[in-house]
Amino acid sequence: RRPRFNPWGLLERLDSGEVVVGDGSYLLTLEKRGYVKAGLWAPEAVVEHPNAVCQLHMEFLRAGSDVMQTFTFSASEDNMESQWEAVNTAACDLAREVADKGDALVAGGICQTSLYAHHKDEVRIKKLFQLQLETFARKNVDFLIAEYFEHAVEAVWAVEVLKESGKPVAATVCIGPEGDMHGVTPGECAVKLMKAGASVVDVNSLQAAGLKEHLMVQSLGFHMPDCGNRGFLDIPEYPFPRVATRWDIQKYTREAYSPGVRYIGGCCGFELYHIRAIAEELAPERGFLPPASEKHGSWGSGLNMHTKPWIRARPRREYWENMWPASGRPLCPSLSKPDA
Amino acid sequence: RRPRFNPWGLLERLDSGEVVVGDGSYLLTLEKRGYVKAGLWAPEAVVEHPNAVCQLHMEFLRAGSDVMQTFTFSASEDNMESQWEAVNTAACDLAREVADKGDALVAGGICQTSLYAHHKDEVRIKKLFQLQLETFARKNVDFLIAEYFEHAVEAVWAVEVLKESGKPVAATVCIGPEGDMHGVTPGECAVKLMKAGASVVDVNSLQAAGLKEHLMVQSLGFHMPDCGNRGFLDIPEYPFPRVATRWDIQKYTREAYSPGVRYIGGCCGFELYHIRAIAEELAPERGFLPPASEKHGSWGSGLNMHTKPWIRARPRREYWENMWPASGRPLCPSLSKPDA
Amino acid sequence: RRPRFNPWGLLERLDSGEVVVGDGSYLLTLEKRGYVKAGLWAPEAVVEHPNAVCQLHMEFLRAGSDVMQTFTFSASEDNMESQWEAVNTAACDLAREVADKGDALVAGGICQTSLYAHHKDEVRIKKLFQLQLETFARKNVDFLIAEYFEHAVEAVWAVEVLKESGKPVAATVCIGPEGDMHGVTPGECAVKLMKAGASVVDVNSLQAAGLKEHLMVQSLGFHMPDCGNRGFLDIPEYPFPRVATRWDIQKYTREAYSPGVRYIGGCCGFELYHIRAIAEELAPERGFLPPASEKHGSWGSGLNMHTKPWIRARPRREYWENMWPASGRPLCPSLSKPDA
Amino acid sequence: RRPRFNPWGLLERLDSGEVVVGDGSYLLTLEKRGYVKAGLWAPEAVVEHPNAVCQLHMEFLRAGSDVMQTFTFSASEDNMESQWEAVNTAACDLAREVADKGDALVAGGICQTSLYAHHKDEVRIKKLFQLQLETFARKNVDFLIAEYFEHAVEAVWAVEVLKESGKPVAATVCIGPEGDMHGVTPGECAVKLMKAGASVVDVNSLQAAGLKEHLMVQSLGFHMPDCGNRGFLDIPEYPFPRVATRWDIQKYTREAYSPGVRYIGGCCGFELYHIRAIAEELAPERGFLPPASEKHGSWGSGLNMHTKPWIRARPRREYWENMWPASGRPLCPSLSKPDA
Repeated sequence: RRPRFNPWGLLERLDSGEVVVGDGSYLLTLEKRGYVKAGLWAPEAVVEHPNAVCQLHMEFLRAGSDVMQTFTFSASEDNMESQWEAVNTAACDLAREVADKGDALVAGGICQTSLYAHHKDEVRIKKLFQLQLETFARKNVDFLIAEYFEHAVEAVWAVEVLKESGKPVAATVCIGPEGDMHGVTPGECAVKLMKAGASVVDVNSLQAAGLKEHLMVQSLGFHMPDCGNRGFLDIPEYPFPRVATRWDIQKYTREAYSPGVRYIGGCCGFELYHIRAIAEELAPERGFLPPASEKHGSWGSGLNMHTKPWIRARPRREYWENMWPASGRPLCPSLSKPDA
Repeated sequence: RRPRFNPWGLLERLDSGEVVVGDGSYLLTLEKRGYVKAGLWAPEAVVEHPNAVCQLHMEFLRAGSDVMQTFTFSASEDNMESQWEAVNTAACDLAREVADKGDALVAGGICQTSLYAHHKDEVRIKKLFQLQLETFARKNVDFLIAEYFEHAVEAVWAVEVLKESGKPVAATVCIGPEGDMHGVTPGECAVKLMKAGASVVDVNSLQAAGLKEHLMVQSLGFHMPDCGNRGFLDIPEYPFPRVATRWDIQKYTREAYSPGVRYIGGCCGFELYHIRAIAEELAPERGFLPPASEKHGSWGSGLNMHTKPWIRARPRREYWENMWPASGRPLCPSLSKPDA
Repeated sequence: RRPRFNPWGLLERLDSGEVVVGDGSYLLTLEKRGYVKAGLWAPEAVVEHPNAVCQLHMEFLRAGSDVMQTFTFSASEDNMESQWEAVNTAACDLAREVADKGDALVAGGICQTSLYAHHKDEVRIKKLFQLQLETFARKNVDFLIAEYFEHAVEAVWAVEVLKESGKPVAATVCIGPEGDMHGVTPGECAVKLMKAGASVVDVNSLQAAGLKEHLMVQSLGFHMPDCGNRGFLDIPEYPFPRVATRWDIQKYTREAYSPGVRYIGGCCGFELYHIRAIAEELAPERGFLPPASEKHGSWGSGLNMHTKPWIRARPRREYWENMWPASGRPLCPSLSKPDA
Repeated sequence: RRPRFNPWGLLERLDSGEVVVGDGSYLLTLEKRGYVKAGLWAPEAVVEHPNAVCQLHMEFLRAGSDVMQTFTFSASEDNMESQWEAVNTAACDLAREVADKGDALVAGGICQTSLYAHHKDEVRIKKLFQLQLETFARKNVDFLIAEYFEHAVEAVWAVEVLKESGKPVAATVCIGPEGDMHGVTPGECAVKLMKAGASVVDVNSLQAAGLKEHLMVQSLGFHMPDCGNRGFLDIPEYPFPRVATRWDIQKYTREAYSPGVRYIGGCCGFELYHIRAIAEELAPERGFLPPASEKHGSWGSGLNMHTKPWIRARPRREYWENMWPASGRPLCPSLSKPDA
């Protein structure tokens, strides 16, 4: 098991070669639990149902997350009106409360605003970020994450604001190449973000840039080969798509870790058992398992006492790695054609 | 919205023609949240992580469940040793605590024992049921459910014990026809269960019997056409199989309601949003929506403000009913061949 | 190899326990070769392109067919007008020419008329059958087949006409149960057909009847689990659907042979290599292979000299029996929903 | 219909902007008809069953082929021993006999030898090509095709030999990029082939070269997205894989024609109805249909007289272009993983 108490911050951990396990999806997970409304995707649950949010933070902590990201997605003033300050404040408190039960860091999170699509008013947009940052600073979060930006320019503005805090800034861009960054390649975007002050940049952005600082990746928790470089919003099933298996995530973890990514977490759709799969896949390298592995025999090992012999035969890595899950839907295709 | 406070018990509700929405899956949902171990499938979480169990009860209540089933699956003395009494007691308290926040009934639940497969000692097995029933009686549950029995004989023993409480007994058998009931047809089984004292019997059992008392059904939350009459344990992906969509469950609800089933709930794999789908599908008949529908526009209506027009075009019943979800896995078959 | 010259007729062969291998699909095979028009499905190729028809007869003979069915599908006067007599005569000549190069029998074939669907004029319809029968008698075919009838009544009329020839009559009904026989079960139909004078009846009709005379089966050459009891015309791809593999047909042959079917052939879509697969599957029982097996190593044995080792590894029965062919179409479903 | 008699040779036709429709697959088509052995893939049928080969030439001619390629695949001395000369001679006669019934050109075809894989003896290999070329010259073929080479060097040797005849040489390489050309890119290969004397080069080779002389393409008749750049031999189903529909081929034809390819034919698996699909797709540009279209209503138009209304509704271009064919195999994946 993990040595108790790790006083290091984000950069000390990454500099020393430690793996930082991110956390998973709050919005989509809480949507399925009845606390978030699809389409609106706002985090008012932190004030309306704090126990539910706290519970989900706890799950991620138990699953092995080293980061508790404040549940402040789209919690800027333009989206939440009068509620925005209460939500940002409560979100910090909830994240800290759970983080302190383990070795987790609290990351204040901001994302794209609703303004950029309509006008590109740098002053007004940066002001929105500053307002959130003030709360994060007052609540003394450990570092900051700029996440889920579709436009490189707005992401750079975010980093420029966040770095003023003097705390480390991690930045990820939304999904992939070309189109989605609106004329800026991911590599160019990565350079811009690092010049703007980000210390950790997601690996998608960096692949084309040849830079190698600290790399992070936060995958969808969905199995989505057909969305390609386009966003998963265009898949006909969105926002209720097919979930990745825990075995999918173990494979994803290994594929990220091998070339050097050390901040590995999840984005939309990532649940506790996905985070746990990251922690379990890297247990050999890290030397410890997360608390939630008490309830999870690796590779299904809890099945080895089943009365049916063919089920007892399943708890082996080879079984799950070679088991191709059926969809149960012979009238459905295996790949969809994304809309638009 | 629903009229506040319903003082009626199970039979009064069903006798008056009311729909009773059951609850969903505790074991598999809490496995995915890190509190239950697959293969062991025991409910020690009620004492180890009561907040997590309480939270899940709350989700089901918000989703529209009229029943809080005690989380006592396989919590008989043979499975849990010294812990069994504490677990049964705490489970009743948790269920009652949440039920009283709404109009829900508490149902004490028992299932098959580990003994029957090895010897058929009626006295010893009934004694196990009696021990659990004593706790349920002491905690004053509203009715009793005998659920998840693979052998008709053992199910009958359970009903014979439970009816001694003087409270209504609902009984369901495990999955379908022939094989699984070990020589007794579902229809014969239903007659036996009703003669033994059950007031509510699941519709699978009754289809062949021609009886029509109170019908219930509690479906899997998985999409499993290929398991046929065999249990879903034989599907290669078990215990981590593909999840039904909320639209699948709306369809299932309508198909159960139309021929007269009035107790509609879920079994393994059923999550909050599945229960909510039952409540939403029957909202026209019942005249009210569950609390969790505050966070759920019917048929995806929250999407109607999305910036992308093809996503704004989705929130329509026809869209979701005609949308065939892709698996995203072209190397996988659509149906599996169940083991053994 | 087969003993040369078999003077026996159809019934002598079947009575002695011999297997009779039928032939395959003329219409659909010649459609793919450019001599038949889909939708019209008429055999004018026997006069327009006799070499092409002769060549196809030769293929079936080489593949192991013991029967050359005259290519007279829908060649009754109502369908072909002035051409009908020339077509029936030429078809008999072509079939005989090829049959005499081996041990094959010539079977005069009739099918449903275009009249029955519009009116049920027994006299007029029987007259159409008699006209064809006169040609068959004059050309001295060895036996008669009534095939492809959607209505039991019309099939019985056909058998009643054909038995007047004094030659054996084989009768098959079109596809399966209920609907397609228009109110007559296959078992009832079989009894009617045998009472009307048929000596060989297809196994689908007889399964429900408990009779056991001579059984025949002539399968589609398509892989069509989704057409169920309905005709394959309702499958969206009709008339150009997916072809069965030779391995599918070997399996079908064994499944027909085991319970006692001894006349095994093919219907729409059956090509040379399907017929050869019948003959090869039954080679152990019959003691000989068909001529076309000179060009066909059993189970792909010609591959055992390939330069690539993974291809050399394929020519084994287990490989082909366990190889699940991919569709190559991930945007397509695996099963279709038949129209109407 | 087409103007009678076209005295032009290959280059005159292409230079004038005419489309040249190639022919299809002899080996695999005749394998399915029982005259070629899979794995050996030798054309001894030209002497053993000349009628069958002649019949297939006729089918392609009727389908619209402007080229009759001699059925001399792997008919070099190393593969066929004493038979080689008789096979090459007979193949030329058969091709000429049929070509002269229309406007088709005869193309003498050579392919890779069995020697190159074992040693790279240029003199000996060129000698094999010269021997075939002597027969082609004596029989006065109209042009020459070097087709199905896995190694660029051997293809260049072939072109160097063939150009000595003074007749036009068309050259195609086997399948795609990297691996298969053994260190030479397709573009480099194309330049080499043209420098060596080829006047028509297949489009795959040229895409990377930026050259634009006469382009040809001869596709597989199989639906094989999963073989990628690797050969279709590595697909588990080879040599019996899934067949492309006629609609697939119409689409392929348009996609080749639009960017300028004017020699469009087929390789392994291409049957009559695939060739006809090329000719029908280009009928608007060319102003005539092939003879076999007499038996083929465009887009299934023969179905418009069917008794069932839902089948009558099919003969429309939109229907077939939007109809996604099901595999009928829900236990099979949609894509395979190529071997090795």
